[in-house]
Amino acid sequence: MSDQNPVFIPGPTNIPDRLRRAMQVQTMDHRSPAFAGALAPVRAGCKRVFGTETGEIVLFPASGTGGWEAAITNTLSPGDTVLVARYGMFSHRWIDMCQRHGLDVRIIECPWGSGAPADRFAEALQADSGHEIKAVLVTHNETATGVRSDIAAVRAAMDGAGHPALLMVDCVSSLASMPFEMDGWGVDIAVSGSQKGFMLMTGMAIVAVSPKALEAVEAATLPRTYFDFRDMLGAYANGGFPYTPPLQLIFGMDESLKMLFEEGLENVYARHTRLAGGVRAAVNAWGLRLVAQSPDLYSDTVSAICVPEGFDSNALVNHAFATYGMSFGTGLGEMNGRAFRIGHLGSLTDAMVLSGLAVIEMAMADLDYPITPGSGVAAAQAHYRATAGTQRAQAA
Amino acid sequence: MSDQNPVFIPGPTNIPDRLRRAMQVQTMDHRSPAFAGALAPVRAGCKRVFGTETGEIVLFPASGTGGWEAAITNTLSPGDTVLVARYGMFSHRWIDMCQRHGLDVRIIECPWGSGAPADRFAEALQADSGHEIKAVLVTHNETATGVRSDIAAVRAAMDGAGHPALLMVDCVSSLASMPFEMDGWGVDIAVSGSQKGFMLMTGMAIVAVSPKALEAVEAATLPRTYFDFRDMLGAYANGGFPYTPPLQLIFGMDESLKMLFEEGLENVYARHTRLAGGVRAAVNAWGLRLVAQSPDLYSDTVSAICVPEGFDSNALVNHAFATYGMSFGTGLGEMNGRAFRIGHLGSLTDAMVLSGLAVIEMAMADLDYPITPGSGVAAAQAHYRATAGTQRAQAA
Amino acid sequence: MSDQNPVFIPGPTNIPDRLRRAMQVQTMDHRSPAFAGALAPVRAGCKRVFGTETGEIVLFPASGTGGWEAAITNTLSPGDTVLVARYGMFSHRWIDMCQRHGLDVRIIECPWGSGAPADRFAEALQADSGHEIKAVLVTHNETATGVRSDIAAVRAAMDGAGHPALLMVDCVSSLASMPFEMDGWGVDIAVSGSQKGFMLMTGMAIVAVSPKALEAVEAATLPRTYFDFRDMLGAYANGGFPYTPPLQLIFGMDESLKMLFEEGLENVYARHTRLAGGVRAAVNAWGLRLVAQSPDLYSDTVSAICVPEGFDSNALVNHAFATYGMSFGTGLGEMNGRAFRIGHLGSLTDAMVLSGLAVIEMAMADLDYPITPGSGVAAAQAHYRATAGTQRAQAA
Amino acid sequence: MSDQNPVFIPGPTNIPDRLRRAMQVQTMDHRSPAFAGALAPVRAGCKRVFGTETGEIVLFPASGTGGWEAAITNTLSPGDTVLVARYGMFSHRWIDMCQRHGLDVRIIECPWGSGAPADRFAEALQADSGHEIKAVLVTHNETATGVRSDIAAVRAAMDGAGHPALLMVDCVSSLASMPFEMDGWGVDIAVSGSQKGFMLMTGMAIVAVSPKALEAVEAATLPRTYFDFRDMLGAYANGGFPYTPPLQLIFGMDESLKMLFEEGLENVYARHTRLAGGVRAAVNAWGLRLVAQSPDLYSDTVSAICVPEGFDSNALVNHAFATYGMSFGTGLGEMNGRAFRIGHLGSLTDAMVLSGLAVIEMAMADLDYPITPGSGVAAAQAHYRATAGTQRAQAA
Repeated sequence: MSDQNPVFIPGPTNIPDRLRRAMQVQTMDHRSPAFAGALAPVRAGCKRVFGTETGEIVLFPASGTGGWEAAITNTLSPGDTVLVARYGMFSHRWIDMCQRHGLDVRIIECPWGSGAPADRFAEALQADSGHEIKAVLVTHNETATGVRSDIAAVRAAMDGAGHPALLMVDCVSSLASMPFEMDGWGVDIAVSGSQKGFMLMTGMAIVAVSPKALEAVEAATLPRTYFDFRDMLGAYANGGFPYTPPLQLIFGMDESLKMLFEEGLENVYARHTRLAGGVRAAVNAWGLRLVAQSPDLYSDTVSAICVPEGFDSNALVNHAFATYGMSFGTGLGEMNGRAFRIGHLGSLTDAMVLSGLAVIEMAMADLDYPITPGSGVAAAQAHYRATAGTQRAQAA
Repeated sequence: MSDQNPVFIPGPTNIPDRLRRAMQVQTMDHRSPAFAGALAPVRAGCKRVFGTETGEIVLFPASGTGGWEAAITNTLSPGDTVLVARYGMFSHRWIDMCQRHGLDVRIIECPWGSGAPADRFAEALQADSGHEIKAVLVTHNETATGVRSDIAAVRAAMDGAGHPALLMVDCVSSLASMPFEMDGWGVDIAVSGSQKGFMLMTGMAIVAVSPKALEAVEAATLPRTYFDFRDMLGAYANGGFPYTPPLQLIFGMDESLKMLFEEGLENVYARHTRLAGGVRAAVNAWGLRLVAQSPDLYSDTVSAICVPEGFDSNALVNHAFATYGMSFGTGLGEMNGRAFRIGHLGSLTDAMVLSGLAVIEMAMADLDYPITPGSGVAAAQAHYRATAGTQRAQAA
Repeated sequence: MSDQNPVFIPGPTNIPDRLRRAMQVQTMDHRSPAFAGALAPVRAGCKRVFGTETGEIVLFPASGTGGWEAAITNTLSPGDTVLVARYGMFSHRWIDMCQRHGLDVRIIECPWGSGAPADRFAEALQADSGHEIKAVLVTHNETATGVRSDIAAVRAAMDGAGHPALLMVDCVSSLASMPFEMDGWGVDIAVSGSQKGFMLMTGMAIVAVSPKALEAVEAATLPRTYFDFRDMLGAYANGGFPYTPPLQLIFGMDESLKMLFEEGLENVYARHTRLAGGVRAAVNAWGLRLVAQSPDLYSDTVSAICVPEGFDSNALVNHAFATYGMSFGTGLGEMNGRAFRIGHLGSLTDAMVLSGLAVIEMAMADLDYPITPGSGVAAAQAHYRATAGTQRAQAA
Repeated sequence: MSDQNPVFIPGPTNIPDRLRRAMQVQTMDHRSPAFAGALAPVRAGCKRVFGTETGEIVLFPASGTGGWEAAITNTLSPGDTVLVARYGMFSHRWIDMCQRHGLDVRIIECPWGSGAPADRFAEALQADSGHEIKAVLVTHNETATGVRSDIAAVRAAMDGAGHPALLMVDCVSSLASMPFEMDGWGVDIAVSGSQKGFMLMTGMAIVAVSPKALEAVEAATLPRTYFDFRDMLGAYANGGFPYTPPLQLIFGMDESLKMLFEEGLENVYARHTRLAGGVRAAVNAWGLRLVAQSPDLYSDTVSAICVPEGFDSNALVNHAFATYGMSFGTGLGEMNGRAFRIGHLGSLTDAMVLSGLAVIEMAMADLDYPITPGSGVAAAQAHYRATAGTQRAQAA
């Protein structure tokens, strides 16, 4: 029965019943008017969540990684230069992808736990007077470290340098849970997926593309077919897909967007801030620290927590699963063995978070961590009680 | 999203996914061999859970209350005398039903919080030398007070008095969560339902009938048709129902029984003892007390908890629901306003129970109860850690 | 995969996906405001479907048979006289129930295939100058014979005789598929269920009760508790049920009513008339005849079809199931072996009906019935083509 | 309610309830042992369906088109020569993809309705004495024309020429419905998807790769990351995916394979042959002809049917949908307006096919096609009756 326990991996997230039901549609002709009628509102609703009025939404049957590949192959050509900072597993993987696609990647190495270094971006961009850099790639929310970066600051760095590069942002684990302002921040391509803030199963990459990025498509010579923006946008104009669409996910997105708008995006963000606050209060009570270096970097969707010296975070995560049937995120990459992660995004309540904190406390105590069992829960309870009035959607 | 929080009412219980799927069958001809093929193992499996080899299982599309009515109308005649002890809301309701059906009900009034008084039953039965008492009715688990009674002791009282009355037991909120021994305890009719230990939706009364009770059916003149054992048993013999059967619940029961047997009934019972132990540890840590008068009476499926003098348990339950989106049981009858209830039966994990304890603690603290927030959770954590190794099914 | 074939038993009916999803709700506290909020619109919507403004709706966790029992036990006393005509299996069963509950049943025997005999009712009622008859019981749609009776004519007979008896109508297999006018026809108690026109799973008896019938409740001394109208109506007034409610069915009903009203009740009825017309065209093309004696009696929800002399309808139904995986209704009672039944009620399309006709034709041909394979389908196609424009909801 | 009608598009196919339930799993940690435990049997079962013992199975969250892209990008380098015959829409699209990825495509143009021209392949391969051709690409089942090609003959042509090119086969709309022998036919890469013979929703490309193809991977320089075989196979070795896996589809595949093996692959193929035979009998009775040029090319999963001169197949398909709520395939590419398609693959019964034939007949009659309504159904009925005994799984 441990499948009744919520999961605390940082995605895929706990799927609410309403969305499970919405995805249970029987096969329907995807060339019928009914499908076209479902697709249009989904794309319109996504624009609202991305915070864009001028961008186009492209939906691929793929995971978020496919969205990354779409972003680079549609706008860049072999040998093009891109600028990326590496400060976690997901920025690392995007860099790897760029290299494998023959791009020249200028990497700014940063400590894990830090965020996108706007100042060093500024430096690099100002130095690039020839505008060789075609794109700046940023991971908005580093799922591996629980760090949220300041995209507006990166945009300011680009504008300050008068640099025309495209700004591409991975917002897979932030979108629909934390504020995102594609137009406001001047983002050219934003990549997300169905299985995090949208609370659906994995299977759809959701990409928002600015008019400027669309202009780059024709000249871009990296080969692509499956992920070609043009095929997609052309097919959408006729109410369809260039190949078989993920019907169940389209209908799921339609309902997911309804849920988000019914709660209100501002309330959704506030709920995540409140839930994350409880987790951080617990971490503090345990006397542990986050991987994220400073409060301005704390992610509201995932907390990566350093285990004390001499402890192995993998053993902790394994023990919690084996003994109490609950899943937490392991430490990835550099953080492997050194940190564990609590995902607190998507469809989640304070009660659910408390069960996660209670279980990881038990697991830590079982493994002789120097923490006081119950202390984290009590701290989180105090936070949730103090903030209970601030959000209405909880009991809706 | 509060529909993701577990419920802590003492039934209907949280339905595990596996059983929700099992109940999703499309309409099938209930006169086809396939239906007969599903019905037989369900009846056989139920016998195992009731602990009977000689009894017959009768399944009505009804709630447990319908099962009570079946028990009395199939075996008794207007004016017949029955002996019942009243020590909670459900024993009270069964008494009320008997009176409305024209039975002469000898009531042994007991304080709420006590259990079936074997000694007073013995007294009454010994005094009934003319054997006017046709049936003794006992509520195995008083859902209103969280009291489990000793059925074997009642049987001993009957045997001690050499009394031939039928022994009828309401085990709606105990069966499949706590041990039940129909044959061992000499129970003649045992009444349960689909929505508690069987973890299904409401809609099926499950009645086990001993050979002795079946013998009483022909002579019994209380009118019944819908709940007539004979129509049911006759139809089962032909693989069907006398009227439209609750198909989805039959298939759900088939899967529920598989889950119970895969976990092992002994393990199921041990799991409930362990979960209840955590709740009781929390109650103790809060400095509160159970309605149940003594440890031997403590139910492993529901705890009724007295609120301190001057507090209103209804306000507490309402606050927990309104503020934290979690449902607990109110105090029923005499206990209304004076106690709240935590249901801990069915498909439940320690992690889920901890979320319930954490929430009710927050609610109590919000309403200025004299408790230390976190104390109950910490006590339950200690209990769950200490007993984690004793049950294997948890993480299955 | 034959579970993908529609069923053509006359209920339970094929459950549309929308309703299957609606019934998949997780357990929710039935004492919470949310449940009360769901119950009220269901009762209001049912009134509309029954065609009553003054009646009260009572919902029992039971099959339709439980609704019959509620009707008689709430309004009659042992020894009371009721008047019933027997012209099929379901009128027969209701008679049996009345007898088992100690009522004095005056039976008007009619040939199977005929309907409620208003003239003979008139005769009997006029002869009953002492008004001993307390209730007239009529089966609106005899599922066993495919006969729909004229309830308005029965009412006229009662009014013509100035008789004050209650008029009780079984509309289990007609309501929500054929017109029903409780107030217009002066019906006092109408009994239906969830698994026919409402397209849900079995498990809820739906009873509509007129003010006049409610007045009879206090004086009625037939024992009842589970099916007591007073407990139900009292509990509804507080937003709940007197015992555990069938939550999933309440939510299912809410959605079922939405579907019916979205299509429009008049369109629902017209759809059933159209579908039935195709079946009747097929029967005619096969050279067979209906059990129903004349066109005014033809039911739009079920057709009972006589097999030719020398053929066994049970063998036909068994062959269709064994060879082609499709379920039809057997002949019941007097019609056993002599007729088979095609249910065409609930959520059904012309395409689905055509598959049923095609299969039963194959089965008949396999068993050497003197019919031309394809003839029935062709006749039904002609009917559906000719009437395709008359209903819009089909492709909705 | 037209969503209850089966669809007759040639995929995605009608999803049986059993698989819909199997895909309803809640989010689970894909890094847990439970996921690894599900993945391994899925890959093993797929090998059996592809008919390979030495091949590796790679599963991408993508549609079948993504599988094509994986096939070419993992084994070829820019400028490489491939040999393809164009005889329908899907062979055309694969050609287009190759060209967009910078391959040199030698196209053998064939009439639509013909199959893979083994003789012309032989010719081209023999002429390629320098072995410039690196791969031969063949569409096993042309969904646009209803043509099944002889892959063994293509292999023979390659072997006859002693040519070392890789043989890549698109079996998206044939696998798990028609026989496929990867090892027997010497196929190096076979590409399929979840939404056809596997009866699941769209979302997973299923690719089988021979040892020889795997050897080509390291030298291949077409860029790929999302679709890289190496990342996948490396992650599988550790029980996981290189990125978020489509959990629900993995569990769905597990159940799909169970269904296929329970029915028996030979029986599955025989069922499709039988179902297709009925469709072809109907086409013949209508006096129409298939696009497929000769019986040896007839596909058992989809029939493309030429409409008579002067008629517009798009109008027919639209009319069937608008008037009778049933979806058929339109004519694609060259066949647009000139043919319509009936998909008869996946989870389908004869009864379902008959409903499709009955509806398209009605639609043709409505549009004054020179056909006799009922004739096609009658012909199919005759076929299904004559072959009913040959397959057992039907009623299972």
